[in-house]
Amino acid sequence: MKIKLFPTIIFTFLFSFLAISQNPTKDSIMLKKLYNTALTDGKAYEWLDYLSNEIGGRLSGSVEAEYAVKYTEAQLNELGLDKVWLQPVMVPKWTRGFKEYAYIEGSSGIKTVTHISALGGSIPTPNLGLKAEVIEVHSFDELAALGKEKIEGKIVFFNRPMNPEFIHTGYAYGGASDQRFSGAEHAAKFGAVGVIVRSLSHKMDDAPHTGAMSYGSTPESKYIPAAAISTNGAELLSSLLKLDPNLKFYFKQNCKIWDDVLSYNVIGEIKGSVYPDRYMVVGGHLDSWDNGDGSHDDGAGVTQSMEVLRLFKKLNYKPKHTIRVVLFMNEENGLRGGRKYAEEIKSKNEKHVFALESDSGGFTPRGFSLETDAANVAQIRSWAPLFEPYFIHLFTEGYSGADIRPMKGNIDVLAGLQPDSQRYFDIHHSENDTFDKINKRELELGAATMASLMYLMDTYGAK
Amino acid sequence: MKIKLFPTIIFTFLFSFLAISQNPTKDSIMLKKLYNTALTDGKAYEWLDYLSNEIGGRLSGSVEAEYAVKYTEAQLNELGLDKVWLQPVMVPKWTRGFKEYAYIEGSSGIKTVTHISALGGSIPTPNLGLKAEVIEVHSFDELAALGKEKIEGKIVFFNRPMNPEFIHTGYAYGGASDQRFSGAEHAAKFGAVGVIVRSLSHKMDDAPHTGAMSYGSTPESKYIPAAAISTNGAELLSSLLKLDPNLKFYFKQNCKIWDDVLSYNVIGEIKGSVYPDRYMVVGGHLDSWDNGDGSHDDGAGVTQSMEVLRLFKKLNYKPKHTIRVVLFMNEENGLRGGRKYAEEIKSKNEKHVFALESDSGGFTPRGFSLETDAANVAQIRSWAPLFEPYFIHLFTEGYSGADIRPMKGNIDVLAGLQPDSQRYFDIHHSENDTFDKINKRELELGAATMASLMYLMDTYGAK
Repeated sequence: MKIKLFPTIIFTFLFSFLAISQNPTKDSIMLKKLYNTALTDGKAYEWLDYLSNEIGGRLSGSVEAEYAVKYTEAQLNELGLDKVWLQPVMVPKWTRGFKEYAYIEGSSGIKTVTHISALGGSIPTPNLGLKAEVIEVHSFDELAALGKEKIEGKIVFFNRPMNPEFIHTGYAYGGASDQRFSGAEHAAKFGAVGVIVRSLSHKMDDAPHTGAMSYGSTPESKYIPAAAISTNGAELLSSLLKLDPNLKFYFKQNCKIWDDVLSYNVIGEIKGSVYPDRYMVVGGHLDSWDNGDGSHDDGAGVTQSMEVLRLFKKLNYKPKHTIRVVLFMNEENGLRGGRKYAEEIKSKNEKHVFALESDSGGFTPRGFSLETDAANVAQIRSWAPLFEPYFIHLFTEGYSGADIRPMKGNIDVLAGLQPDSQRYFDIHHSENDTFDKINKRELELGAATMASLMYLMDTYGAK
Repeated sequence: MKIKLFPTIIFTFLFSFLAISQNPTKDSIMLKKLYNTALTDGKAYEWLDYLSNEIGGRLSGSVEAEYAVKYTEAQLNELGLDKVWLQPVMVPKWTRGFKEYAYIEGSSGIKTVTHISALGGSIPTPNLGLKAEVIEVHSFDELAALGKEKIEGKIVFFNRPMNPEFIHTGYAYGGASDQRFSGAEHAAKFGAVGVIVRSLSHKMDDAPHTGAMSYGSTPESKYIPAAAISTNGAELLSSLLKLDPNLKFYFKQNCKIWDDVLSYNVIGEIKGSVYPDRYMVVGGHLDSWDNGDGSHDDGAGVTQSMEVLRLFKKLNYKPKHTIRVVLFMNEENGLRGGRKYAEEIKSKNEKHVFALESDSGGFTPRGFSLETDAANVAQIRSWAPLFEPYFIHLFTEGYSGADIRPMKGNIDVLAGLQPDSQRYFDIHHSENDTFDKINKRELELGAATMASLMYLMDTYGAK
């Protein structure tokens, strides 16, 4: 792109900005202030730098998770909110132990090292590792059709890729993630000795992507170890299996499930000036996987949520409702923080009107996913013109966010920030989820977009 | 983000996809095919890998530019098009020479090395470099107000940052780029001996961003050397100037302006089945700056444009109009390719209906910028519902693309692909514009979006 011809584009954009500013409303002016402040004087990026680079991966029960609690509590305390506190919650503690090690051993004895990552919640392999023949499958139906005879004593290799035809990558993820979450449970039924799952990513690289798994109703004595293999590793293993069906896979991991430990949700609030007993929540989750530094999942959501309250204070906006930022603990492998918060507002009978979560990465915001009734969807969609100057177009009905959904039934409106989804699963739950993948402006635009919806909900209330 | 709750999002998306597929039209089916094929069996990423990693930066007149001509011609020849040819065009040749070197020298004699890049079209410094005091300005008005007395014998340091408040970064770029393009011309009038310009980027880092400059009507004897300094370097220089106004800046560059050389636009076409004498063009520019590998600017546009014709062939779509892919030479520092193509269609009286350019990076496509009359804008906007499943929402009026604009007046509709703009200027014209910044799916979605508009224009024609 060249500069000389830019005056035309400038003129065009100027024109559309002028068109808006010719009819400025209280709301359009407030949104402009929120975006301008986030982009010129934002703090989300600085906070995220600290969370990512000074603290790092923050798996529930880890020292890093506790550092993150202390850090965000201290930062919220500096914002001059009306109240900041920690909400205790017992969380699962699973540790990875030493770095996993794996190789493919051909019938001729040649070994090729591959990259794996134990799945969160998996048991370890025996101390000396586990070596067995491999059977590749693409679905639970295929697994069942093979049956015990073909599976017993083997490692089951789930290798169904994410479907690239879905434009929203979350959809492709949802369509492939049963293998990771329940693969071990299904394979154990047929006497498999271990499970290797293709990483949930569109990108072909060497980084394995971890994530939560569950043994479901499997008796503890039948638990088998489960790990993710990188997409390149999965392609290699699949190709080699075609040439050498009797090859063996070896892997060693010494992850461990411990007793639950005490942790916290971090909460801050600005008291409502008109409806102090009606609550609106903005949040993300403080815990992350341990292999990256959790910048996009969900350091971004945490710092964007903190930024919403900071922007309100900075602009001296006095909300009508009580606005809370909630930094939830343990979304990744338990959801205990989200459940705890929902239980407590129910037991205390705190009237919650609105909750907004950011947990899909800190990418350019595209809109919101709304979980509410038709009247509230219609009201929010009526605000679409206010969002147009910021290229926010999506007001779809659907899934809001894992941490806020436990409030469903006790809240009027749930919403999730929808950022652009294309890059998310390339880095998600892997060593690639690091701060260098964050674009400062994209993060800030997300925070401003959240603040804007929070402002509008506060101003007009739920239907 | 966690998997267990994804069924809800799946269901929601499924529902919206079903809603569309319940009323499939010929057009919606064709768009789905174009997107599916681009995402599952695309070739743009592979082509771009070669252009970027095997050829590299392709400044007009360089060996790399000629390799790029040969490579893309050969690749187009493999697509089974009806005709592939090279259109000769004389282009400027400017070479950077050895790597530039610069430092800030404080009054105490302490030297701090900074990162600069000669601007394209600049003359060199003297062989032993140039050292002078520095005067910082932010606009041409400020420069003029200072006048000859304050400026003569000094290096003028233009340090007006891009305005972060604009949501579309192209607007911020347009608002700051006069310093780079005409800074030397203005400073020379007041007897400056050199010009240093803050890099046009929102990102704070050490990479200088080059770009075209012009001496305008300055007599050749008054030309002064001009270079871009990284944003970090600009901040440092500005801070040090406040402490030590008499500090000196030293820089050395041995760039050179040569005589024009012969190069080519690369063109391929599929003959129209109904209107063989009516032409529709899709294109990007083959040349790039030399410091990166030109992946986003504009290898992306080149390979996306080639992909449009490949998708048509692959899907056995027989266009009514003659569809041409044009890979323009010399957009960056001369626009000779774009002008040549426009001259030739005028002299040959070839009726051109539509041209579409991609030259704003290979990021997630958001829509189109349209340069045409109201009737054509209205027709294209009437297709918006077809694009909605692909999250394409922008159909704005404005600047289309540098290479196709010379056709204005001899064509019905000009359009530019509008990708997400947030990351573009972080890498633009710098060493950071490299293949690792390309997301395969974002690139492919851009190609499919272009192919979709080309298909619709071919089907319905211009108004």
